[in-house]
Amino acid sequence: MPTLRLDLAYDGSGFRGYASQEGQRTIQGVLEDSIALAIGARVDTSVAGRTDAGVHARGQVVSFDLDDRVDLGRLMRSLNGLVGPEISVRSAKEVADGFDARFSASWRRYRYAISTEVAPDPLTRGFVWHLGPRLDVDAMVATASEFEGEHDFSAFCRSVEGKSNIRRVHEASWQVGDDHIYFWITANAFCHQMVRSLVGLAYDVGRGHTAAVSVAGIIASGDRGRVATVAPPHGLTLWEVGY
Amino acid sequence: MPTLRLDLAYDGSGFRGYASQEGQRTIQGVLEDSIALAIGARVDTSVAGRTDAGVHARGQVVSFDLDDRVDLGRLMRSLNGLVGPEISVRSAKEVADGFDARFSASWRRYRYAISTEVAPDPLTRGFVWHLGPRLDVDAMVATASEFEGEHDFSAFCRSVEGKSNIRRVHEASWQVGDDHIYFWITANAFCHQMVRSLVGLAYDVGRGHTAAVSVAGIIASGDRGRVATVAPPHGLTLWEVGY
Repeated sequence: MPTLRLDLAYDGSGFRGYASQEGQRTIQGVLEDSIALAIGARVDTSVAGRTDAGVHARGQVVSFDLDDRVDLGRLMRSLNGLVGPEISVRSAKEVADGFDARFSASWRRYRYAISTEVAPDPLTRGFVWHLGPRLDVDAMVATASEFEGEHDFSAFCRSVEGKSNIRRVHEASWQVGDDHIYFWITANAFCHQMVRSLVGLAYDVGRGHTAAVSVAGIIASGDRGRVATVAPPHGLTLWEVGY
Repeated sequence: MPTLRLDLAYDGSGFRGYASQEGQRTIQGVLEDSIALAIGARVDTSVAGRTDAGVHARGQVVSFDLDDRVDLGRLMRSLNGLVGPEISVRSAKEVADGFDARFSASWRRYRYAISTEVAPDPLTRGFVWHLGPRLDVDAMVATASEFEGEHDFSAFCRSVEGKSNIRRVHEASWQVGDDHIYFWITANAFCHQMVRSLVGLAYDVGRGHTAAVSVAGIIASGDRGRVATVAPPHGLTLWEVGY
């Protein structure tokens, strides 16, 4: 019983997120319907990152088991004919038995893109949050190191009853360019809306609504009410997953 | 009577090109209507590059004369509220009397983007021509130097009766990356469909339909029938204009 791994990229703009929902257009829904058409059987997929509505992916990973071997090159071409152009299957491989895109993953990396240009760039508007030039970027950059390490991220998550919000952030940093700033974050896993809430807090710091010195206290408080802003989904991309 | 210069970027996907056409959605049409709303008077604009339907711009330049001075910051904000999000006014400046975006320009630079990835990238699909990995990129690169210099580009242009197709190409080159190749070309001016036809010929060379050695002869022939392929507009961006 072969296990397959698909690497996906997608423009999340037109989808209600990754995970299947009855009556909604989702990445998982389109992908699983396409797999069923391509191989003539429905499969249960596992995914590395359940991205929210409007969030994009460059390096999403999906796995599933099949009853029989298939021609991988042909499967990939068939799927790309069915799922495109908003979704792209960038590779299809057979992997070791027991590989699970979700449970085998050791880290996920996301990128959040912000434009600091005076006027937004029409060519990147679907993938970049335009905030303009009046931000205190140095103060935003200073927030990142506070996010690193193992914390209870309840202040940044839409909590699910009975589930822990403790996550280990391996690395969080801002990459500052001439007219864009990028927030990069790598963690073992992320709770719901975590990256967008961290970026939202950094934005509140950058525009002077929240003092940079209070960030550690906000994390420690676990108080969701202290993070006023959730950055919009279109600036966020699931960049890479590590195994 | 002040002369204004606007620098524009736009996603050309949803437009029938730059130049106004009765009953069509064009960049010029949207821009001039927006200027009329913003300042209460219609103006005649001049433009550096009349881009075709579906072609994008990062550094388009437009100029026009006004009867009276206006607050430039306010004009820019008003226009961006009216023309966005597919068009962006990136700067608005008063320039020397006699400046004309078209006639004062000494060169135009275009970029044509091609993806050589196995599967197309959904995040760049609106701005990149996806051709996949099977191209002879070295042969394509070799075509560029043939395009440089002053030539009659009739083999590459939709000719207009009585108008010359002689243009001076200052520089033409391919920038080769891991999964994208970019054709950069700078010329005093371009005739209609010239860049897309040059890229089309390079593509025919890259896929073995045309021999690289015959490129100089095709240019010299002036025979439009020898250039079979015109690259699609969405890979092309007017990058910069020099004055």
